[in-house]
Amino acid sequence: MSKPMATCAEVLSEFTHDLHLDAIPREVRENVALRVLDILGIALASTAQDFAPSLLGLVEAWGSGECTVIGTKLHAPAPMAILTNGSLAHGLDYDDTHTAAICHASAVVVPTALALGESLALDGATVLAAMVAGYETITRIGMAAPGEFHARGWHATGVCGTFAATLVAGKCLGLSRSQLTAALGIAGSFASGVLEHLEDGSWVKRLHPGWAGHSGALAAGLARGGFTGPATILEGRFGLYRTFLGSVPDLSRVTAELGSRWETLRVAFKPYPCCHYNHAYMDCAARLKREHGLTPGTIQEVECLVPAGQVPIVCEPLEAKRRPRTPYDAQFSLAYSVAAALVDDEVGVDTYSPERIKDERLLAVARKVRYTVDPGSAFPRTFPGRLRIRLVDGRVLEAAEPFNRGSAENPLGVSEVVAKFRRNAGRVLPPSRVSTLEEAALGLERASSLRPLLALCALP
Amino acid sequence: MSKPMATCAEVLSEFTHDLHLDAIPREVRENVALRVLDILGIALASTAQDFAPSLLGLVEAWGSGECTVIGTKLHAPAPMAILTNGSLAHGLDYDDTHTAAICHASAVVVPTALALGESLALDGATVLAAMVAGYETITRIGMAAPGEFHARGWHATGVCGTFAATLVAGKCLGLSRSQLTAALGIAGSFASGVLEHLEDGSWVKRLHPGWAGHSGALAAGLARGGFTGPATILEGRFGLYRTFLGSVPDLSRVTAELGSRWETLRVAFKPYPCCHYNHAYMDCAARLKREHGLTPGTIQEVECLVPAGQVPIVCEPLEAKRRPRTPYDAQFSLAYSVAAALVDDEVGVDTYSPERIKDERLLAVARKVRYTVDPGSAFPRTFPGRLRIRLVDGRVLEAAEPFNRGSAENPLGVSEVVAKFRRNAGRVLPPSRVSTLEEAALGLERASSLRPLLALCALP
Repeated sequence: MSKPMATCAEVLSEFTHDLHLDAIPREVRENVALRVLDILGIALASTAQDFAPSLLGLVEAWGSGECTVIGTKLHAPAPMAILTNGSLAHGLDYDDTHTAAICHASAVVVPTALALGESLALDGATVLAAMVAGYETITRIGMAAPGEFHARGWHATGVCGTFAATLVAGKCLGLSRSQLTAALGIAGSFASGVLEHLEDGSWVKRLHPGWAGHSGALAAGLARGGFTGPATILEGRFGLYRTFLGSVPDLSRVTAELGSRWETLRVAFKPYPCCHYNHAYMDCAARLKREHGLTPGTIQEVECLVPAGQVPIVCEPLEAKRRPRTPYDAQFSLAYSVAAALVDDEVGVDTYSPERIKDERLLAVARKVRYTVDPGSAFPRTFPGRLRIRLVDGRVLEAAEPFNRGSAENPLGVSEVVAKFRRNAGRVLPPSRVSTLEEAALGLERASSLRPLLALCALP
Repeated sequence: MSKPMATCAEVLSEFTHDLHLDAIPREVRENVALRVLDILGIALASTAQDFAPSLLGLVEAWGSGECTVIGTKLHAPAPMAILTNGSLAHGLDYDDTHTAAICHASAVVVPTALALGESLALDGATVLAAMVAGYETITRIGMAAPGEFHARGWHATGVCGTFAATLVAGKCLGLSRSQLTAALGIAGSFASGVLEHLEDGSWVKRLHPGWAGHSGALAAGLARGGFTGPATILEGRFGLYRTFLGSVPDLSRVTAELGSRWETLRVAFKPYPCCHYNHAYMDCAARLKREHGLTPGTIQEVECLVPAGQVPIVCEPLEAKRRPRTPYDAQFSLAYSVAAALVDDEVGVDTYSPERIKDERLLAVARKVRYTVDPGSAFPRTFPGRLRIRLVDGRVLEAAEPFNRGSAENPLGVSEVVAKFRRNAGRVLPPSRVSTLEEAALGLERASSLRPLLALCALP
């Protein structure tokens, strides 16, 4: 009898099991350390936001354990710390996204790896390798069906992220190849996350990366004890793609060049705390404002040329997008975000505050923003931006950005990511702590234990 | 401005919030107490099975808290106790099913209510009312799209159960109407569960009710702290039905006659520890065996007439169904289960043991079982059975059962459910403990605290 062909889950499990820091290029390792820094800054900033108390209340009620809840005095068992830290990491929609997969990667991968690394007393090298396995998994599972999860109402981050977190947790727990495969089979029954929050600007999406991490840790924990799950969870007749999307795409897209092409490097850092779809439009708007000295009074109309796949997320329903009901609504509004780029010199966390979304000066510009579908868009391979501004004096200005800033084709410099971390962490930590933490995060690979790093994230 | 029409989630939340024991008919209340008994017996029996250690290992690693893990010395925080107890409750596939919804109800509802009742020191009346809200929710959300979740590869128990568990937990936690609605909105992003385990007989489905309960408790806990979620989670453009099934059915099926028609009573107790689809066929086979003194040697062929919707679950792939790879595989095999009913005088937990599924005498009969699709079946409104046995001597025997035994139309007597409990609990507890526990469970409604009941489920 010939050996049956390995399933997609088996290939990912083998890759994860065998991955060692030595086999990961320096560029990738340094990139991941920068992502850890980025996530810690965002999670810290989130602890001062209105959604944080309900997350922390969960830990207070049901959580006591050994893992740091970032930016607090609380400690929780790994699955609960991951739920909380992952939700804080995604809470500002300021965390990175792999564009072709449309998946937030670091908010799933980093909190899962940090909590398990902390509780299991792992060294930085082990945790960093687990993270890379996670990045390669979430991006590839998402990329295999580009844009399709969102088109059907799923949040790809939550759905694909559950599998990635399972491998991150499984690698930290030292699972065998077959245990990793079983864990992925279990993860298929935990994967979840829908986009219905778009209907009223409620908060649910914030939970998706934390929930994926929570689910992944429990799936890996079950497999460690011998619980079994189907190896065919990705390609099977009741597997991920068939149940969530109705058909199975070419899964060689998941496994091709594993270990030689690093999708980790293609996860785009975010310069703005809002839906990634908005970013390149905001950069176009900011550039035209700067180059032509635009003020709200000079603008007649702003026309955004958007791919059809972005419309239900950031363009419609138009009236709610022009007058966001909640800060979260505003983060998913192209009209509001472009208006902010046209009115303000800088767009940041406070652009999306409860007070600011009621600013009539800003809302007056948002009302001037409309959209037209651009059938030629490269989305979701890239998240481009293209807009026309008609001025009151009759002139028409145009701008286009083929690649969002922060993507692999239009990268943010290390210093820009570090500056972002300092701004975010500085919202809740004193400057001396910010710089010690920065050093610890960037030195992750050489750390003999994760505990000092996490201790710096806890309140005394 | 006129008041906007309430969403489906809002109607369920109002019903749950306002439901009081006085408004629940005695018949329903007594029925629920019997379900608690049934679930405790099954969960206790499960602790002696091969899948139990990996569940308990999870609690040992990440669980310490105040809720009893049934049949053990362990205590865990409510969400973790629910995950474990719900998985034990469903572990033998011996727990009840609402046929029209194709949802296992008690394995979701009872562990969720018991853990929260225990940790919050609630009385029996409060917990019983919460359970009824849960039964009415899981059954109605499933019934609105009969058979459709399974047809697309979803396990309706996990998916619909998450919403039910959320309301059970929310009622125990004393949430307001709007908090209950937010919790349902959150639950929509936690709902999950696919049927890929059918491909290899692995264990994942066992987790689905516990996972639904775990998810529901966390959704309710988040809403208690003020976390928000979309009220349109059931009917919305990215809500449950649209994302999972592709379209929204008539949702008046969910809310019609809430509080006057009690679907709780239509949840079918199980006489056999295997997939409910098999049961009426097994009863047909047992009757023909009894009436005609059949022995394996007299049987030429067994033809089961099955509805198309059952084929992918219990009939195909045919060879794996005729020679199950694991006990769990055997529980989802019509061929194996009908063979057991023809060979053995009694079908019980040990019919599906690792040793017994290798019994060539039984497998020889399973090989004789084939199926034909019956387009006239009433499935899933009922789970009927119909089969023909061709004997070696040329005679053809026929039998049909329009309603599975244990359903509302063909009920198990109270004494039969009690006897089932005694057999199950007696596998791990001494007889004196079994009878004290029986009394405590059936007296749930009058208990001032759940703690004595749960203490009887714990090992000393």
